[in-house]
Amino acid sequence: MIVVMEKGVSQEKIEDVIGLLESKGFSLHLSQGVERTIIGVLGDKTQKGDLALEALEGVEKVVPILTPYKLASREMQAEDTIIQIGDVKIGGKDLQVMAGPCAVESREQIMEIAEIVKKGGARIMRGGAYKPRTSPYSFQGLEEKGLQYLAEAREATGILIVSEVMDTRSVEILANYVDILQVGARNMQNFALLKEVAKSNKPVLLKRGLAATIEEWIMAAEYILAGGNKQVILCERGIRTFENYTRNTLDLSVVPIIKHLTHLPIIVDPSHGTGKWRLVNPMAKAAIAAGADGLIIEVHPDPSTALSDGPQSLKPEKYMQLMQELEQMAGIMGRSLKPSVNLHKTGTEG
Amino acid sequence: MIVVMEKGVSQEKIEDVIGLLESKGFSLHLSQGVERTIIGVLGDKTQKGDLALEALEGVEKVVPILTPYKLASREMQAEDTIIQIGDVKIGGKDLQVMAGPCAVESREQIMEIAEIVKKGGARIMRGGAYKPRTSPYSFQGLEEKGLQYLAEAREATGILIVSEVMDTRSVEILANYVDILQVGARNMQNFALLKEVAKSNKPVLLKRGLAATIEEWIMAAEYILAGGNKQVILCERGIRTFENYTRNTLDLSVVPIIKHLTHLPIIVDPSHGTGKWRLVNPMAKAAIAAGADGLIIEVHPDPSTALSDGPQSLKPEKYMQLMQELEQMAGIMGRSLKPSVNLHKTGTEG
Amino acid sequence: MIVVMEKGVSQEKIEDVIGLLESKGFSLHLSQGVERTIIGVLGDKTQKGDLALEALEGVEKVVPILTPYKLASREMQAEDTIIQIGDVKIGGKDLQVMAGPCAVESREQIMEIAEIVKKGGARIMRGGAYKPRTSPYSFQGLEEKGLQYLAEAREATGILIVSEVMDTRSVEILANYVDILQVGARNMQNFALLKEVAKSNKPVLLKRGLAATIEEWIMAAEYILAGGNKQVILCERGIRTFENYTRNTLDLSVVPIIKHLTHLPIIVDPSHGTGKWRLVNPMAKAAIAAGADGLIIEVHPDPSTALSDGPQSLKPEKYMQLMQELEQMAGIMGRSLKPSVNLHKTGTEG
Amino acid sequence: MIVVMEKGVSQEKIEDVIGLLESKGFSLHLSQGVERTIIGVLGDKTQKGDLALEALEGVEKVVPILTPYKLASREMQAEDTIIQIGDVKIGGKDLQVMAGPCAVESREQIMEIAEIVKKGGARIMRGGAYKPRTSPYSFQGLEEKGLQYLAEAREATGILIVSEVMDTRSVEILANYVDILQVGARNMQNFALLKEVAKSNKPVLLKRGLAATIEEWIMAAEYILAGGNKQVILCERGIRTFENYTRNTLDLSVVPIIKHLTHLPIIVDPSHGTGKWRLVNPMAKAAIAAGADGLIIEVHPDPSTALSDGPQSLKPEKYMQLMQELEQMAGIMGRSLKPSVNLHKTGTEG
Repeated sequence: MIVVMEKGVSQEKIEDVIGLLESKGFSLHLSQGVERTIIGVLGDKTQKGDLALEALEGVEKVVPILTPYKLASREMQAEDTIIQIGDVKIGGKDLQVMAGPCAVESREQIMEIAEIVKKGGARIMRGGAYKPRTSPYSFQGLEEKGLQYLAEAREATGILIVSEVMDTRSVEILANYVDILQVGARNMQNFALLKEVAKSNKPVLLKRGLAATIEEWIMAAEYILAGGNKQVILCERGIRTFENYTRNTLDLSVVPIIKHLTHLPIIVDPSHGTGKWRLVNPMAKAAIAAGADGLIIEVHPDPSTALSDGPQSLKPEKYMQLMQELEQMAGIMGRSLKPSVNLHKTGTEG
Repeated sequence: MIVVMEKGVSQEKIEDVIGLLESKGFSLHLSQGVERTIIGVLGDKTQKGDLALEALEGVEKVVPILTPYKLASREMQAEDTIIQIGDVKIGGKDLQVMAGPCAVESREQIMEIAEIVKKGGARIMRGGAYKPRTSPYSFQGLEEKGLQYLAEAREATGILIVSEVMDTRSVEILANYVDILQVGARNMQNFALLKEVAKSNKPVLLKRGLAATIEEWIMAAEYILAGGNKQVILCERGIRTFENYTRNTLDLSVVPIIKHLTHLPIIVDPSHGTGKWRLVNPMAKAAIAAGADGLIIEVHPDPSTALSDGPQSLKPEKYMQLMQELEQMAGIMGRSLKPSVNLHKTGTEG
Repeated sequence: MIVVMEKGVSQEKIEDVIGLLESKGFSLHLSQGVERTIIGVLGDKTQKGDLALEALEGVEKVVPILTPYKLASREMQAEDTIIQIGDVKIGGKDLQVMAGPCAVESREQIMEIAEIVKKGGARIMRGGAYKPRTSPYSFQGLEEKGLQYLAEAREATGILIVSEVMDTRSVEILANYVDILQVGARNMQNFALLKEVAKSNKPVLLKRGLAATIEEWIMAAEYILAGGNKQVILCERGIRTFENYTRNTLDLSVVPIIKHLTHLPIIVDPSHGTGKWRLVNPMAKAAIAAGADGLIIEVHPDPSTALSDGPQSLKPEKYMQLMQELEQMAGIMGRSLKPSVNLHKTGTEG
Repeated sequence: MIVVMEKGVSQEKIEDVIGLLESKGFSLHLSQGVERTIIGVLGDKTQKGDLALEALEGVEKVVPILTPYKLASREMQAEDTIIQIGDVKIGGKDLQVMAGPCAVESREQIMEIAEIVKKGGARIMRGGAYKPRTSPYSFQGLEEKGLQYLAEAREATGILIVSEVMDTRSVEILANYVDILQVGARNMQNFALLKEVAKSNKPVLLKRGLAATIEEWIMAAEYILAGGNKQVILCERGIRTFENYTRNTLDLSVVPIIKHLTHLPIIVDPSHGTGKWRLVNPMAKAAIAAGADGLIIEVHPDPSTALSDGPQSLKPEKYMQLMQELEQMAGIMGRSLKPSVNLHKTGTEG
């Protein structure tokens, strides 16, 4: 940390800062230039509590040098984290696609989509049983019944299940049914929930908050890691900007950034990231080209009657076509998308 | 709702839209212009479930006409909501200031600040016992012990207490100790929490999410109102923009907008809204000039050692000075800030 | 400037950075901590050309310590700049209001509004003769004829004139007619234009770009100051955010920030800053409460037929009422708004 | 256009709106629902001047139905615009890469980079002779001398030249030297400049403003088209968001959106769009995967000493590698990147 003092500040105020820092056990390094006095502070801030040096008069600004996250950083772990669930690996050479409806609507819907999802080659199905809706008057999800349908679909097809948890009180029940717990964008800084999913032994898909900086997002992952759960998958789903043609602005540059700063896998959600089905195909391909480890995509047999997020859902045939195009893209990126043939076999056996 | 069809769209696709809408029981109104076919849709969407017309081919866009909120709207209730707690009214002629530390740090700290807060003329004290912190390594709050200190301070001074609730599981315990439950910016769309505080009989201070549109914010209030709790106080605390000199960009224009669109009281938080103590005084005055019903301000006897948010906390003497300046501002705005004299008497009696 | 090297970087890469910096004549200060090597760089970067240290491998980040502006800073000039035009002072104790239509539409319109503006107590009239319009199909302004009408209005009423310049080729002609040259938000970083107005001897009203950081805005002023024109007035007019209920988000916190960082006067434009006439009155008062040196406000006798920006224009009676309310606000802020009486006399004499 | 009246508005106010609209020659369509009266307005607004209906009391909002642009729209022209300069086509099956330094620094630099650029397979070289710099103390460009060097490099290599024009007064001189005129992000709404480049017969590369909506950007193109110049190439170069790890947030979703809404070619600038050389390679590939017609990339033999934008410039070997990877990407996208072999031959002949 570097403390920059105001120009022409009194010696007394400089000593106030030095005194406070030394009382906390930091080593200091004073540099008195012509324009500014600068105090270099050595030592790990996370071990010594918070400081509010900017509250002291005479302090112009405080510049952090070290990143505030430790466990998530590449410095802590150089090799990529690979999360394995059964024979599905997330974060390795294989690309993983999570496909399915925004919301679980009925048993029939889920069984139908599960077959489609699997036929297309995805190995994980998404589907919300507890839905975060902007309006209290919108469909709020089938809750536990929805989870049961998802579990049934897994039984029938062998496909894995990811579903969102919104309440600390539901973590346990979700963990009983699904393979991956999703923490949604609106709950990225629901710290009580982060602490709770950290106690579960399930992998967590952590979506980026709609106005979260990259550092805040990594810090949210750090909560889960620090709570003892090492299986965190990050998911870019678009950020809020001034542009309103799209629902969100999908920020694909975070893919190589997250790969550079952390060892965690990252996938991309082009459905929420754009809000328009027309844009899902090109942005899905762009995400893989940028280096993403996978995708989460909304698929619905009849988007116009979907109880949630229909405008951004792909029809089955468009999903199938996308999966084929992604296979080519995976190839030139040195990745692979598991062939649907093998999956089908697993399916019939399952 | 208006459905705008693409130019040159086939009659068949128009009929698909009409069919879907009629099947949901809407009355329609077709207008076939030279450039576009437009379908006017009459009827209350909230009563008929969600629709995803944009998922249909040939639909260019869907334009909502009615606001999605009902209970919060001025149309539903023309007169201002006034929330009364003891003899303190929020939303009426009196301005209310909620002052105190970001976090409850110790019994001594709270008792000391309670006296200062009261002496300055504020009638409500803020103080966090459960703290939402970006880092898992930062001070997370004293939890129930912190609430006990706050309750003690109320005993001693007669001042009311507002404190943040972060977890559905803590609503009940918070409600036992405090007068106003605060839902923080990061939890504005924690819908499980909104539903839970709606069941409490305590007033709720609902902070605007850091990237929440005005409509989303009102919809979050609507969750609480729809859940049966009519006592909602909105709080502007700055939004996230590209500007980084300040912690957030305080959006004062929402004050007259909220007054225009809703009947709910609105207060402003210039401490979080700017992140810098230097800016608290001018922005507090500006908030009152814009028509706010009150303020929430961080005050700390020694900001540089505060365990949270020191850089934006006022020292006691700066708080006292601000309260005096606010009295003048209240005067020309036709509002009043209760004189500290009376309060003191109440205090000694209490 | 502080150069932070990556963790575990080789000695060779550290020496590459040191070599480059020393070759540019900087004094260095090396600090090798456990986590990072940090290189403190002393000396004025502006004197030694640009550097792109981040392009070197092994460099994690470069942190600037000094502000990039010099002439605009409080450090360069401690006392406020006061700009005087005739007996009108901008930046001193008097608040100045610039009022008038968005666009000059006709001679009659301008003569009528000039009387209204003056009667309300403003001493400066705004009116665009060259209009920046988003659409090529919108009214683009009366150009030189518009300037002539403005000059006539000044003749008749004694009121000063501010009008926008959009093209380097028009600076001279504008300077012949008006008292203050306005550089609009969209041209805040039109550097050719900034250099050209710097050569004029007219005061320049420099609007903040709609996505300009505070530092970029001050740097735009620095262009004008560095070009030899010391008469720069800053104008906050709202920034672009995700919120779309308003045309822009008026950022009033910049008022005390600009006062802290620079010696330049700052005024606020609540008309463009909100885009809605209903919000002009409360935000105008809030701006003065935040410490602004004045306002620029759109006034039009018949806003619904205005050729530009009608929705945000005040009708004459609402302008009159606002001016009265502002007088009270000026009073408690220790400022004054010149009484219309004196102005009228000047007018009849002029 | 749809005019939505406030709830419970008087008949008189409705008639005011109707009267104003009829006086302008619009056909109307009144719909009086239970909740709102809605007035549908038929006719082309662009032909009938501006209207400020929101300035009328009783009007809640005005909702546009038609896009404000005509010439740029797919409705006006269904097939893609292909811009041909010599044998180089922009917007067709061939991908075009524009590569080179941010600024022209010297004759030697330009001749050296031109060879590199060409060797890598790009057919167009970028290089700024007039530089828009945030600071007046930064290198401002070699001006006409820089243009001469660029022209010399074209002579020597056969490569085409694109360079930025910043001032209406320089359009003619630029047009004498370069093949494509660039209008930079900061000048996207410099309407005087747009009108001036519209008069030139050179293709214009129009960068998206850093806070420009898609609609504003297309409207800027519309200025050039309406001025008689049909050769407009759009360029996404990142928008300003709250995220500061990158210089800008590259918005790749605009690629398929622009292709959907307009017939104009669009290229992407991953150098400015990220500000970091590490991110250029993945984002360049992602741009092509999203459907872009080409790229503009900064290449510099020694980025750390570049006079401008070094941190985002690729070294020659990284540029060469990227071009090879792009060829593969072009292949699966059904596009082609011209082989360097042929180019070289043209070069030696030229």
